[in-house]
Amino acid sequence: MRVIPVAGVEEIGRNMNIIETKDDIIVVDAGFQFVSEESNAPGVNYILPNTQYLEERKDKIRAMIITHGHLDHIGGIPYIMERIGNPPIYTQYLTSLMILKRQEEFPHMEPVDMKVIKEGESFTVGKLKVKTFRVTHSIPDAMGVCVETKHGDVVITGDIKLVHENGVVVVEERGSWEKVGQNKNLILLCDSTNADRDGFSASESKVYETLDKIIRTATGRLIVGTFASQFDRLINIIKTCEETNKKVVLEGRSIKTNIDIAIHAKLLEVKPHTFINASDMGDYPSDRIVILSTGAQGEEFAALMRMATDKHPTITLNERDTVVLSSSIIPGNELAVQKLKDNVYRKNVRVVNYKGSHVHSSGHGNMGELVWIHQTVKPKFLVPVHGHHFHLKSHFYAAIENGFPRTNITVPDNGTIIDIKNGEEMIVQPMKIPTEMVLVDGFTVGSRQEVVLRDRMTLAEDGMFVIIATVNSKTGKLRKSPDIISRGFVYLRENQQLLSEARVLIKRTVEKQTERMNPLDLDIVKEQLTDVVSGFLFQKTHKTPMVIPVLIGL
Amino acid sequence: MRVIPVAGVEEIGRNMNIIETKDDIIVVDAGFQFVSEESNAPGVNYILPNTQYLEERKDKIRAMIITHGHLDHIGGIPYIMERIGNPPIYTQYLTSLMILKRQEEFPHMEPVDMKVIKEGESFTVGKLKVKTFRVTHSIPDAMGVCVETKHGDVVITGDIKLVHENGVVVVEERGSWEKVGQNKNLILLCDSTNADRDGFSASESKVYETLDKIIRTATGRLIVGTFASQFDRLINIIKTCEETNKKVVLEGRSIKTNIDIAIHAKLLEVKPHTFINASDMGDYPSDRIVILSTGAQGEEFAALMRMATDKHPTITLNERDTVVLSSSIIPGNELAVQKLKDNVYRKNVRVVNYKGSHVHSSGHGNMGELVWIHQTVKPKFLVPVHGHHFHLKSHFYAAIENGFPRTNITVPDNGTIIDIKNGEEMIVQPMKIPTEMVLVDGFTVGSRQEVVLRDRMTLAEDGMFVIIATVNSKTGKLRKSPDIISRGFVYLRENQQLLSEARVLIKRTVEKQTERMNPLDLDIVKEQLTDVVSGFLFQKTHKTPMVIPVLIGL
Repeated sequence: MRVIPVAGVEEIGRNMNIIETKDDIIVVDAGFQFVSEESNAPGVNYILPNTQYLEERKDKIRAMIITHGHLDHIGGIPYIMERIGNPPIYTQYLTSLMILKRQEEFPHMEPVDMKVIKEGESFTVGKLKVKTFRVTHSIPDAMGVCVETKHGDVVITGDIKLVHENGVVVVEERGSWEKVGQNKNLILLCDSTNADRDGFSASESKVYETLDKIIRTATGRLIVGTFASQFDRLINIIKTCEETNKKVVLEGRSIKTNIDIAIHAKLLEVKPHTFINASDMGDYPSDRIVILSTGAQGEEFAALMRMATDKHPTITLNERDTVVLSSSIIPGNELAVQKLKDNVYRKNVRVVNYKGSHVHSSGHGNMGELVWIHQTVKPKFLVPVHGHHFHLKSHFYAAIENGFPRTNITVPDNGTIIDIKNGEEMIVQPMKIPTEMVLVDGFTVGSRQEVVLRDRMTLAEDGMFVIIATVNSKTGKLRKSPDIISRGFVYLRENQQLLSEARVLIKRTVEKQTERMNPLDLDIVKEQLTDVVSGFLFQKTHKTPMVIPVLIGL
Repeated sequence: MRVIPVAGVEEIGRNMNIIETKDDIIVVDAGFQFVSEESNAPGVNYILPNTQYLEERKDKIRAMIITHGHLDHIGGIPYIMERIGNPPIYTQYLTSLMILKRQEEFPHMEPVDMKVIKEGESFTVGKLKVKTFRVTHSIPDAMGVCVETKHGDVVITGDIKLVHENGVVVVEERGSWEKVGQNKNLILLCDSTNADRDGFSASESKVYETLDKIIRTATGRLIVGTFASQFDRLINIIKTCEETNKKVVLEGRSIKTNIDIAIHAKLLEVKPHTFINASDMGDYPSDRIVILSTGAQGEEFAALMRMATDKHPTITLNERDTVVLSSSIIPGNELAVQKLKDNVYRKNVRVVNYKGSHVHSSGHGNMGELVWIHQTVKPKFLVPVHGHHFHLKSHFYAAIENGFPRTNITVPDNGTIIDIKNGEEMIVQPMKIPTEMVLVDGFTVGSRQEVVLRDRMTLAEDGMFVIIATVNSKTGKLRKSPDIISRGFVYLRENQQLLSEARVLIKRTVEKQTERMNPLDLDIVKEQLTDVVSGFLFQKTHKTPMVIPVLIGL
């Protein structure tokens, strides 16, 4: 029996795990990762798990199981399904709606074969029996997965936290996990996202209490920025608004989409006149208005930033408003959120955020919860997944400090092959599966982009400097002064002197080279020209633009 | 009397304030700002305050006063001094050494006219008397400035925190500020960096205690990563090492430089054999070795990252080491620090950082300290400086909630002109001084870089696509199939089909245009070609590279 964390164990995002037996493969989750400024991948849209291993074994793939509907678990689906032979997708109802909604953006794709399962339902794919169990995360219909094998179950938690009161896990939550613990569990792949945090996580019910109080006591308009994927929180806010006779404005496409999905999934029943359009806000006193908005991460074009910068068609912030940022800051977005806060404060609107108030809790459990899960599920082997190496290692340390045998834990990298022999021995194979990054770059989906990305980074730092010269093939002399096209290097109007020196240098370099050349070999000249001009430009400007000579022999 | 925060009030960094009377101008501080990935200024080294207003009034400038030696207060000096007429620099000893050390890197510059003043010393420049007073910051020889004017003093704090015990300011600290409070203080320009944090800041002495304990109890090698500018902390660590008979290895140029400066300034006296070279570490048991290292912000080429990735010539991390990150994370560096922690954890070395342990305290005071300063200095007017707008506004709210008259506070932008009329009225002029960003970009220092930066960002996202075609001037036909040079766009080897379609399209577009053109106007053809090819490439790849046509008429 083989387990492979394909991706998501050297980053937060693009989660995918594989369970493989002699005859069958089950894939669990297919996330993508958003690209941040620091990823050294300018222009790239997303990073996908590398599925080459699966593509080579697509006849063995019996199912894609999706634990829940967040993009780090479903985002890769449109790009991956055809490559791996379109296996059926098993998931719960809400998740299925979210997947199908995204597929609408890819109309040329073959329709997915969606198998909607109920909470706790079991099913069989190939020779493998799969049991599912409900878990708590920041989205409904989240589930964990147990796959039965000869020597015991493979348990994959998906993303999880525990519902608890001061560290005591509540009955329903406990029951679900204890039921899993009654199986013979061979190996546990467990969420590590918050494994570096001590104790138990803050509970979402505290967040509801806080938001409830803020909504009830608001004396002006309330703007709540949150993740569109926080279904439960959005639903709760809308319910509180109905109880307090407030009107709700939805701002931002993803929030509107997800509320539609929630209504469709009957997670939410909205009274006829609860939702109003932003353009009708004037019909109500401002303390009866709550705006649910996207953009709490400081996204430049999202509703919240547009409101704060007078770019929103109907909503402008004013002094009597309160903005609640009901979200944490995703690493890499700190400066964008700073800019958002600056803009909101410029409107003399104060911001309530998770640092000063319980308006957000993470969907992932802390160290204490993870250890509780180890001790309840009682697996023989443990593989921390979901997180940077640092999170996985923190998970590892937490486990061994609480008695888990060190040798029964593997901290994997992306693509690490973990074999369990006779249910007794955990073997980490010396070779990994292919792991080159697969990038979504416009319409291109591929792994061969290193050169392209390197060029983009050079261009971003110092720009380019193209030299166009026509050379007389007989004499080797330039036919006229060379043309120079430069972008992103220096401001040319202010650097005419530099340009004319460069032209002289180019002419001299070419003609010196061609003087004793017979026949003319322009490639040699180009190479020399690149070196000479690069050196000259660096000496003059301390910049190293990409120098591209074009020599046309005539 | 006029006060202008030139820069540093819409960002953290590039601090500069001006005090101007009828006859005289005093400039306080000349910082620069480091550029982060999110600044939308790829390739730019630093951002400077815009000194155009000063350049136009350089005959009035009597002094540049530097409050302390951090780069956000001294970094701009080499780029600015000649532009503003090389006024004398007044500062304390350590700061003077740090400034002079940096000037060594600019040997072609006129030497600065350095006036070293003692702690608390007063001096006169032009018609203005300047009093200085000691303040607490994370570097020695930090001072505040009072400039006497007819209607009272202008007080500029520089960067400050307060030494306190549970919120009670200690005697020495209190005395210094109370003495300032005895003057008639007209206006206070006060640090806002941590104005969004409640209460009083954590004290540096707690950090010493923690580090002291970590050093004394270390059972293996200790690697402490910190800011090289944390003089006091570095000095304290070295003293503890001497007391415990440990050897100290200095790693990283800036730490070595600053320790040299500290010794030169007699802030530190080191016993003969305390410092050892990394290559001699083998001569001592590992628990007697402490490495002070740069790179706690995850900088790719700094000592700490090199140690963690086996790229350091003499130091490789191993399981018995402990890494202490004695610094906070500068916003924008979160992912770099995450990468550093990942790499350190890969070596099975655990990291002690400020989140879990008191190994760092900020050099800036919290809200409670700022209010204490308002109430002790008792100025008539208040101008929060140093910070993003959000910090300044937080400072503003803290002040008015503690009784400061709202109308006597101005929250400035970069370049806001604040005039005090007869010591009675604060007037914010409707016009600001010039504020375009001045960028250090290689050897270029200037403000006209918008076009260049926009090009760099386009190139970074989607690359470039240069078309070279020779056109027969008589017939308008292409002489041969056009050449295409593309970088950073798509991987060309995998896109031969795209290229050949593009060539056909280019030929067709040019020849269709030139068909009825007499005489040939290649500029019109180029424009059309750019549109057509851009549209084609976007439709095929969903990317928008910079399309540059070069048409050579022959």
